[in-house]
Amino acid sequence: MYVTHLECPKCGAVFDHRKLAGLCTKCSSPLLVRYDLKKIKEKFSKKRLKHRSYNLWRYKEFLPIENEKNIISLGEVITPLLKLEKFGSLAGFKHLYLKDEGLNPGGSFKSRGAAVGISRAKELGVKSFAMPTNGNAGAAWAIYGAKAGIEANIVMPKSAPLITRNECAVSGAKLYLVNGLISDAGKIVAKAVQKYAIMDASTLKEPYRIEGKKTMGLEIIEQFGWKSPDVILYPTGGGVGLIGIYKALLELRAIGIIENLPRLVAVQAQNCAPIVKAYESKSKESIFWENAHTIAFGITVPKAIGDFLVLDAIYKTNGTAVAVADEDILHYQSLLAQNEGLFICPEGAATLTAAHKLLKQGWINPKEKVVLLNTGTGLKYPDTVQINPITLEPNGEIEIKF
Amino acid sequence: MYVTHLECPKCGAVFDHRKLAGLCTKCSSPLLVRYDLKKIKEKFSKKRLKHRSYNLWRYKEFLPIENEKNIISLGEVITPLLKLEKFGSLAGFKHLYLKDEGLNPGGSFKSRGAAVGISRAKELGVKSFAMPTNGNAGAAWAIYGAKAGIEANIVMPKSAPLITRNECAVSGAKLYLVNGLISDAGKIVAKAVQKYAIMDASTLKEPYRIEGKKTMGLEIIEQFGWKSPDVILYPTGGGVGLIGIYKALLELRAIGIIENLPRLVAVQAQNCAPIVKAYESKSKESIFWENAHTIAFGITVPKAIGDFLVLDAIYKTNGTAVAVADEDILHYQSLLAQNEGLFICPEGAATLTAAHKLLKQGWINPKEKVVLLNTGTGLKYPDTVQINPITLEPNGEIEIKF
Repeated sequence: MYVTHLECPKCGAVFDHRKLAGLCTKCSSPLLVRYDLKKIKEKFSKKRLKHRSYNLWRYKEFLPIENEKNIISLGEVITPLLKLEKFGSLAGFKHLYLKDEGLNPGGSFKSRGAAVGISRAKELGVKSFAMPTNGNAGAAWAIYGAKAGIEANIVMPKSAPLITRNECAVSGAKLYLVNGLISDAGKIVAKAVQKYAIMDASTLKEPYRIEGKKTMGLEIIEQFGWKSPDVILYPTGGGVGLIGIYKALLELRAIGIIENLPRLVAVQAQNCAPIVKAYESKSKESIFWENAHTIAFGITVPKAIGDFLVLDAIYKTNGTAVAVADEDILHYQSLLAQNEGLFICPEGAATLTAAHKLLKQGWINPKEKVVLLNTGTGLKYPDTVQINPITLEPNGEIEIKF
Repeated sequence: MYVTHLECPKCGAVFDHRKLAGLCTKCSSPLLVRYDLKKIKEKFSKKRLKHRSYNLWRYKEFLPIENEKNIISLGEVITPLLKLEKFGSLAGFKHLYLKDEGLNPGGSFKSRGAAVGISRAKELGVKSFAMPTNGNAGAAWAIYGAKAGIEANIVMPKSAPLITRNECAVSGAKLYLVNGLISDAGKIVAKAVQKYAIMDASTLKEPYRIEGKKTMGLEIIEQFGWKSPDVILYPTGGGVGLIGIYKALLELRAIGIIENLPRLVAVQAQNCAPIVKAYESKSKESIFWENAHTIAFGITVPKAIGDFLVLDAIYKTNGTAVAVADEDILHYQSLLAQNEGLFICPEGAATLTAAHKLLKQGWINPKEKVVLLNTGTGLKYPDTVQINPITLEPNGEIEIKF
């Protein structure tokens, strides 16, 4: 393992990675995992990867696991990077790609954070954790927790997608619903972790989830033949994925694998767009968004603890932040399924909506390589699809009009 | 492509694979795709696979696609073969594995049949098809059909899992529900394909779906280092997966890759067990099962058109057929999730139930390598999980008992 320490990106304080850590004890910022990049530069070779398993653990130089025995795996795969030929040519893109995180165990990108976060928690001796969630993250930590034998206490909004409740329950997690938003769930968890002295697995309150999400960036770069695409669009709630992808890009640049960085785009919903608002006013941090609500439930985060890291990634890569309307999200979700056969989640559809908007505005050039992050499968959001099937009796007939 | 012809496994009649074919025109049996195995033996090498994409298309010598341009892909992956260490040691298995087909596009093994079936249909110029389904197959053919630009007409029982309706609808398929079983849906489709002269994509009424399912067998053998495990358990409704796996094994044996075949086990539900009944009476075919019903909806097939092929595979490999109770299926589904973090579908859980039963009966030896086929993700079956979460107000607290 090449981890050297944990570092506060706000005040620069340094912490020991061999001890369980939460936020910076000096300024309450999330901590980042730092590696000996010089050593990685010496040891890492693209060729060596050919002999490794075809999943996120192949990037072991960039991961914070000391002993491979502690790896908790549910069968992660390198998720496909699909070229959207038909939709792309309809919309005017020459090179539009979708990275389909719906093929992760549990059907969402949250598995990456949980795989690495739980593995490291196991390595550090954690027995129990609590976390607030909009659904998918809690489900992912619950299933990986079950495999690791670590107790999971999950608090989610009552309005979170129903299926994620089932995942928590079936895997034996303790599940609580709250009449409120993820921010209310967060307060409940904060009280519990203090009272019971268990691990706080809230977004960015432990440093290892980012390392798991980082692997999306590593995979994208490898899938493009170790080159950067031009633009990556990411549906942004807590923003950990975007922070992770940016961290991957910086680490790969530091060891000389890539030169240029793609422009990173944070996509939010019009009725919950604190990052977009902050970006438009050139702020370094966001302001709590009142009455947040969107069909893209996973990105209903009124104020992200890592907002300053998200905004930094956008500014430093000459990216942008875009808000899209719920009705457009549903429209593009169905357009994609009809043209490409991909049933993606509304958060993923938000990136498609935003990409088309940016293309029409000229911010994206038709010739650029553009990557959409679909963070999960549409299967977990059956309510986003309206259906009116015809019901027949056993002796009935179907009528086909050509 | 190494396909030489289509062959009737019942009467031996031979058909031209370059023409769209249904059942044997002489005896109404399903047809099998035959290859020039001598040529494949000359050309196929395990080493060459190392340079190929990590998905089912890597086995191109064994697939019926002439021009790679016709391949319709939604990002298939080599699905993980997971060793169930914790559950295995609790139950007394030394080497218990689960092949997790839930990581396919659309969340089920049906993608394999649809990927190859739709690709070949496109190659043969098909514009429209109709099919009866218990849900997952229709959903898979709908999404692959959408990508291929082939019109899908799907007829499914009203009681089929709700989420599969959404997949059909969102991808633009024409969806019909029937007040009855898949056999009733089959009759409606039979009338439609005759009336409108469109392709009949019913189970085994077109020969290419088996070729897609076959890739499960190819992957399992490659994942065991090109060796056979001892036992493979498969949840059996139409039985195409089992027929496909058996076909893969025979083809690999014919070209000298493996010597021994694993014993194949068909797993059914107690209230829909026509194959088990036939096996117990040493019959070559099954009898229509009246009042079929089980929570493992995908295997509610009262009489499979390929029953004789399933039974043949069982007899020839010294396999067996086992029926399990719905309440046991739910119990094992939850046991697996709690121990291994895997939320599998009830059909997959049926194989776990059956494996444990066969171990206790001594039919499986604790030291044998046993593979369970989990045909899909539990996410598509939220109703199989009972949950009673505690609801809190925003100022609430959680109570943890150690």
